[in-house]
Amino acid sequence: MASYKLLLLPGDGIGPEVAGGMQVVLDALKETGLATFETETDLVGGSALDAHGVPLADATLQHAKDADAILLGAVGGPKWAGVAYENRPEAGLLRLRKELDLFANLRPAICYPALAEASTLKRELVEGLDIMIVRELTGGVYFGEPKEITTLEDGSKRAVDTQVYTTAEIERIAHVAFDLAGKRSGRVASAEKHNVMKSGVLWKEVVTKVHAEHYPGVQLEHILADNCAMQLVRRPKQFDVLVTDNLFGDVLSDIAAMLTGSLGMLPSASLGAVDASGLRSALYEPVHGSAPDIAGQDKANPIAMIGSLAMCLRYSFGLGDAADALDGAITDALAGGARTADIAGEGTNPMGTRAMAAAVADAL
Amino acid sequence: MASYKLLLLPGDGIGPEVAGGMQVVLDALKETGLATFETETDLVGGSALDAHGVPLADATLQHAKDADAILLGAVGGPKWAGVAYENRPEAGLLRLRKELDLFANLRPAICYPALAEASTLKRELVEGLDIMIVRELTGGVYFGEPKEITTLEDGSKRAVDTQVYTTAEIERIAHVAFDLAGKRSGRVASAEKHNVMKSGVLWKEVVTKVHAEHYPGVQLEHILADNCAMQLVRRPKQFDVLVTDNLFGDVLSDIAAMLTGSLGMLPSASLGAVDASGLRSALYEPVHGSAPDIAGQDKANPIAMIGSLAMCLRYSFGLGDAADALDGAITDALAGGARTADIAGEGTNPMGTRAMAAAVADAL
Ligand SMILES: CC(C)[C@H](C(=O)O)[C@@H](O)C(=O)O
Ligand SMILES: CC(C)[C@H](C(=O)O)[C@@H](O)C(=O)O
Repeated sequence: MASYKLLLLPGDGIGPEVAGGMQVVLDALKETGLATFETETDLVGGSALDAHGVPLADATLQHAKDADAILLGAVGGPKWAGVAYENRPEAGLLRLRKELDLFANLRPAICYPALAEASTLKRELVEGLDIMIVRELTGGVYFGEPKEITTLEDGSKRAVDTQVYTTAEIERIAHVAFDLAGKRSGRVASAEKHNVMKSGVLWKEVVTKVHAEHYPGVQLEHILADNCAMQLVRRPKQFDVLVTDNLFGDVLSDIAAMLTGSLGMLPSASLGAVDASGLRSALYEPVHGSAPDIAGQDKANPIAMIGSLAMCLRYSFGLGDAADALDGAITDALAGGARTADIAGEGTNPMGTRAMAAAVADAL
Repeated sequence: MASYKLLLLPGDGIGPEVAGGMQVVLDALKETGLATFETETDLVGGSALDAHGVPLADATLQHAKDADAILLGAVGGPKWAGVAYENRPEAGLLRLRKELDLFANLRPAICYPALAEASTLKRELVEGLDIMIVRELTGGVYFGEPKEITTLEDGSKRAVDTQVYTTAEIERIAHVAFDLAGKRSGRVASAEKHNVMKSGVLWKEVVTKVHAEHYPGVQLEHILADNCAMQLVRRPKQFDVLVTDNLFGDVLSDIAAMLTGSLGMLPSASLGAVDASGLRSALYEPVHGSAPDIAGQDKANPIAMIGSLAMCLRYSFGLGDAADALDGAITDALAGGARTADIAGEGTNPMGTRAMAAAVADAL
C-alpha cells in the first residue's frame, strides 16, 4: 500500500478548525485501506510569526520540500495588520509558492445544485456551473522586480511593481490549461489585456502557439480580462477552463468563486512542474480566507478544506477513484441536509465545523 | 448666454450612430436656450487610422485641446485586429487620455428600477444600485515604463509592463473621490492590493493621509481589490464611491457596469485637473464598446452617449440643472416604455437608435 507524506499547515483564524475537520476525513480515508498517510503539522502565517518571528521558518520550508504534498488552512488576520511588509502573514504563503515553484493554481468554481439558491445570481445562470480557473501563480506583478517604494527629492514617494512574463512561464501554464481542457469539455478561454499591456501581447502570442502546435483538438478563445470579468457576471456557464496571469487570476477566480454563492465550499491546488521521477510539489488550500471574525467558534465550513484534500488525492497521488469517492461524500452530505451557517438557507438549523466534517466522513 | 466648444469624436462601430443620437438631444437642448454649443466633428480610432494612417492625428489632438469638452463614441473593431501595436484603435483613445492628462475617470453604475430585471443578479440586490467608480486613468501599469518585449539569447521572449504610482498621482485622484463622496452618501471605499504590491502600499498610505487631513466627514474603508470584486457580486449596494487604480478600475468598473444589466445605459467622464482659470480638460464617452456586430443597423442604445452629454453639462459646464433635466428625460423615456433591443424585455417591441434618441429629446 502506498504511503504519502503530508505536511499540514493549519495557519491562522479558522485555518486550524477546518484543518481539524479535514483530519477527521483523512482518518476515515486511512481506514478504507486505500493508502497510508504520514502527517506532520507546522506553522505558517501569523502563527509562525508569533512563534518564530517570521511567517515561514526555514525549517518549515524544508519540511514542505520533503513532503509529498502540503495542505494549508488559511493565513492572516487583523492581529498582524501592523507588522513590517516582509513579515506579513501572506508573505509566508507567497514564499512557499515561490520557493516550491508552484506556478499552476487550479481553482474550480462549482455551483452545487443544492446550494444554487445561495448565489446572488439568478438560479438558471449558475446552477450546474463548473469552471476551472488556471491562474499563473509565481510570475507577474506580484513577484517581478523592481518592486519598491523610493523617496523623491521633494520628499514625496514613487512606488513600482513590475509585471514580467517570459515565453517559458506562459508556455508551461498554457500546457496545464490545455491538458485539463482535454479531460473536460475541450474549451479554453485565455484572458489578458493585449490592448494595453506588452505582457498581454506576449501571453496571447505564446498561448496561441502552444495551442496550434500541441492541442488542435481543444477550442481556444482569447478574451480581454475586463470583458472576461463582465462575462463571468453576465453568462458564467460560457466558460470551461479559463487560463490567465497571476493578477487577473486573483480577481477573476474570486469573482467566479463568489458566483457559486458558497465560497466556503471551494478548494484549490497550486502545482509545480512534474520532475524526472514523475513527482511534483503541490500545495492545496481552500479559496476562502482566515475569517478571523468567526475563528474558534466551530462555525467555519470545512468543505473547502476537505475538497482540497480530494484535489490532493487526484493531482498529487493519482488516486482518482478515492478523490471521486470523497467528492461524492461531500455531495451526499449536502444532499442529506448537512449545512454549516454560511450555506444554511433561511429557517434551517446549521451545524458546526466538526459535525459537518463528521457528516462527510460518514458519507464516505 | 454661454457658448461652449464641443469636439465630437464618433469613432468606430456603433460610435457614429450613438453620437448621432446624442446630436438630436443636443439640438433639443439648444432650443431650450440654456446654452449654445459649437460642435466640430473629427476622427479617432480605426476610422482615423483608415483616413490618416494613425489612430489620432496631431490636428485632432489640437482640436481636442482647443475644445471645452470632448464627446467620444467608441473605438475599435475586428477590421483593425492585425495592425501594429502602436496603431491599434485604442492607442488613439489612450493618447487623448494621456496628452490631456485626463486622470480622473468617473464611471457611475446605476441600476434603473425599470431595468432591474435585466440584471443577472437577483432584483433586490441591484434595484436602486448607484455606485460611482473613480478610476485613476493616466498612471499605473497601462502607461508605466519600461513597457517592452525583448528577445532573450535563446530566442525566447520577455515582456515587461511597469506599475508606477507617485504620491502626487494618488493624492489628486483621492481628492476627486472624497469630493464626490461629500456630495453623495459620504462613503469612500479604496481598493488596492497592499498585501502583494508596493504600489498598493503607497496607495493605501496616501489615501489614508488625504482623508485624515482634508475629509474628516467622509467615511473611508480600505478593501483588497480581489475581495472588492467579490463584494461587488455579493452585496453591491454596500458601495457608494469606489476609488482605485487604472488596472483594477478597468476590471471593477466593468463588473459594476454589468451588475446593472444595462451596459448600453452607462456613461463615463474622464477629467483633467482644474487649471488657474477654473477650466479642465474633459472627455465623455459611453462605457460600452464599439459593438461591430450591430454597427450600422440602427440597433444600438444611444442612452449611454446621451448620459455622457449629461455628465458633460454637469462636470464641464456647471449646468447641474440642465444635467438633471437630461437625466430626468432619460428616466421619463424609459418609464414611457422606450426600449432599444439591448434592454427590451421578452415580448416587447424594441425601437431603434434614432427613435430612442427622439424619445429622450421629446421627454426633454
Ligand atoms: C493572500 C494573497 C497574497 C493571495 C494572492 O493575492 O495571491 C490571495 O488573495 C490568493 O488569491 O491566494
Ligand atoms: C480600450 C481600452 C484601452 C480601455 C482600457 O482598458 O482602459 C477600455 O477597456 C476602458 O476601460 O476604457
